[in-house]
Amino acid sequence: MQRPIPAARNLTMAGTNLPEPPQGSEAPPRRLARRSLLAGGGLGLGLGALLGAGGAWGATSLRATQAAADAPGSDAALEAVPSQGIDGHLPGFGGESLPCHGNHQAGITSVPSASVQYSAFRLRPETDAAALKRMFRVLTGDIEGLTSGFSPLADPEPELAARPARLSVTVGVGSKVAKLAGREAPEWLAPLPKFTLDELGGGYDGGDLLIVLQADDPTPISHAARMLGRDLASFVEPLWVQRGFTRARGAEADGTTMRNLMGQIDGTVNPAPGADDFDGLVWLGEDATWLAGGSAFVLRRIRMELDTWDMVDRPGREASMGRRLADGSPLSAPAEGASEHTPADFEAKNTLGLSSIGMAAHIRRAHSTDPGERIYRRASNYDDGTEAGLLFGCYQTDPRKQFVPIQQRLDEADLLNEWVTHTGSAVFAMLPGFSPGGMLGETLFT
Amino acid sequence: MQRPIPAARNLTMAGTNLPEPPQGSEAPPRRLARRSLLAGGGLGLGLGALLGAGGAWGATSLRATQAAADAPGSDAALEAVPSQGIDGHLPGFGGESLPCHGNHQAGITSVPSASVQYSAFRLRPETDAAALKRMFRVLTGDIEGLTSGFSPLADPEPELAARPARLSVTVGVGSKVAKLAGREAPEWLAPLPKFTLDELGGGYDGGDLLIVLQADDPTPISHAARMLGRDLASFVEPLWVQRGFTRARGAEADGTTMRNLMGQIDGTVNPAPGADDFDGLVWLGEDATWLAGGSAFVLRRIRMELDTWDMVDRPGREASMGRRLADGSPLSAPAEGASEHTPADFEAKNTLGLSSIGMAAHIRRAHSTDPGERIYRRASNYDDGTEAGLLFGCYQTDPRKQFVPIQQRLDEADLLNEWVTHTGSAVFAMLPGFSPGGMLGETLFT
Repeated sequence: MQRPIPAARNLTMAGTNLPEPPQGSEAPPRRLARRSLLAGGGLGLGLGALLGAGGAWGATSLRATQAAADAPGSDAALEAVPSQGIDGHLPGFGGESLPCHGNHQAGITSVPSASVQYSAFRLRPETDAAALKRMFRVLTGDIEGLTSGFSPLADPEPELAARPARLSVTVGVGSKVAKLAGREAPEWLAPLPKFTLDELGGGYDGGDLLIVLQADDPTPISHAARMLGRDLASFVEPLWVQRGFTRARGAEADGTTMRNLMGQIDGTVNPAPGADDFDGLVWLGEDATWLAGGSAFVLRRIRMELDTWDMVDRPGREASMGRRLADGSPLSAPAEGASEHTPADFEAKNTLGLSSIGMAAHIRRAHSTDPGERIYRRASNYDDGTEAGLLFGCYQTDPRKQFVPIQQRLDEADLLNEWVTHTGSAVFAMLPGFSPGGMLGETLFT
Repeated sequence: MQRPIPAARNLTMAGTNLPEPPQGSEAPPRRLARRSLLAGGGLGLGLGALLGAGGAWGATSLRATQAAADAPGSDAALEAVPSQGIDGHLPGFGGESLPCHGNHQAGITSVPSASVQYSAFRLRPETDAAALKRMFRVLTGDIEGLTSGFSPLADPEPELAARPARLSVTVGVGSKVAKLAGREAPEWLAPLPKFTLDELGGGYDGGDLLIVLQADDPTPISHAARMLGRDLASFVEPLWVQRGFTRARGAEADGTTMRNLMGQIDGTVNPAPGADDFDGLVWLGEDATWLAGGSAFVLRRIRMELDTWDMVDRPGREASMGRRLADGSPLSAPAEGASEHTPADFEAKNTLGLSSIGMAAHIRRAHSTDPGERIYRRASNYDDGTEAGLLFGCYQTDPRKQFVPIQQRLDEADLLNEWVTHTGSAVFAMLPGFSPGGMLGETLFT
């Protein structure tokens, strides 16, 4: 089957045909690390030439490179490949796509993107188990298409889909979806306990279905969100949307941690995908039955009171956080020669004999001596011009044992509480990954 | 004067001192074209090495390169230079800054940025002419600092300012500001005539002061907007804010035209900065007295009805626009071999003898045979998750003779009207540029 051309807007493509959309057995090559593609663009051009300079990427070429590329047991989600929906060269990262197949869903351990949209939905009362399954089938096809640079079948703007810029679509469900499918929802799949300082109820709580869209360009996010919303409209209704951003891709060198809108380096101490302890902290095991390979996701909307924060001097801000603003180094380390990655020493005293990191400093309250009491954070900033803050997302295996005890300590005493307020809260079971030919959410129905 | 270090977050800067903030006589070198900096980053590193590898940029080095760099009569606003607020190398475009000085304000003819924020304010009743002048003095210092990577004096987060990512701050005024300063407001500096299909009154109309923030990264925009809002708070109060985006920088090759959220290539036929006829269309002349070197700016918020637009097939969409979706070529040109830059032929007929570009096609209605009836457009997309559309900004010398007749034709008959609605409208006099040592808005008071 050949489709009409979703031409990249800056390439002359008259008369060329695109390769086939991805099929179960014809996934794109997965072994091209993003960092290689980032290394100047030269590789990208070379690769384009390899696959047929000046012409469209042929499905044959893709198949030919696939065997070498597709090592068994790989975690595809960490890597990006050139999108199929473009011509033979790569004029920018817009053409990169992130494979959606794997043991885990894409977009959880991938390099954080520059833009994110969280879209939550509520099940329509008329949606039954059969409709739910149809919904996941539609969703699966849409995700496979959109993330690889192809449009859903009835997409009238394939041009907007052709440049996914590492788009990922990650899907989570609430307990109602589990029950509708006849599966038992884990106990943690419920609203979090109320924290004293929470100010929820502002329209950013809960939901039956979560779709997380991430990309390095907001345009494919807008397009994908609309296509998905349209295709899901008969099954679910929109509940809330939150859009966030981190530093633009290319603005900074790779490997640095995001700075939030309070000026703090945010997320330094974070389990690293690939580290020995990561899997146990984040991925649900076989005992989670239909959720094995999935993860528990908590999203908190945290409003920042930046007007009053502005009145605090730098020593006050650093004491509140427990870290220096300039480089993120902990206050327990010497002012020179330390970095954000220098471990905090909570026993250290200053020359007055007081704790270098105060008793109510944010990083002390957030810290636990229990290595299992950690979360894998993915945070982004939000700013609508009148309100700004953090969309604090975190992955774990059980929020009751990971996010909740941490947040309880922060809720009880954290100097930052003067300037941050949690105004939205949601918990979702992020589904396991799916394979070519399979269906996202298939374990719900088997 | 040496200031404490606004350290770039990913550089080790312990112990280094930054050069002085920009002074009237010590502006940064201006002759480094953005495209050179974009050419792979290699030049940036080489430049850093030239100015002192591994160390901070010295003010002396800046002065040494300035003489060669600063050719007379140049239009600084088109070019970017490395920000001063960083260490000797350039790990990403975050460190680029756009000079704010020149005959015209920066941010009008600069290469369009990936992110934009329009912030409108209303004069406080207690603000008199003397306060207004103080306001412009504060604004001038803030703009000089923020755009070059330095913070305003009391900025508690210099780290957020240190990476401006080509931040520009462009300022316009309404007629009340002119009157308060004792100057005559031009007749065009008033609300536009009501168009039949307008649905204004949604909170995005008018204003006494407009601040346009543009950058390739949303983070410095958020920071700068907050700093400016804080410093202006005693003079003006916030009226509305609109945030927009185009394709992320680096996602596409340079020189392509933005695609809007309807999937259309948007803004192809646009006067080019530097072209013979550009100055006459855009810049106000000496007869504009205090506005000589400024420009008339119209901002329209255009909501797109994407849900119904999705139901239109591709031929229907292309007929509405008068251009092909794939490559933006006009329907009067052959389907192969034409591009968005192929001139539209409004006389061309198809094989049925009908006009190739329909009588109510958007590009026919927008087109004028009067070469003076053109506007210089700078548009961006907006999408808050529930509503999406276009922030349509355009520059000219007189909206009554340029934007208004075009919009009147569109308002009367444009096939696109079925899916677009103007929901916000504002007109501002964008002030002339200012020089080092001078003040933005000084012609208001002299």
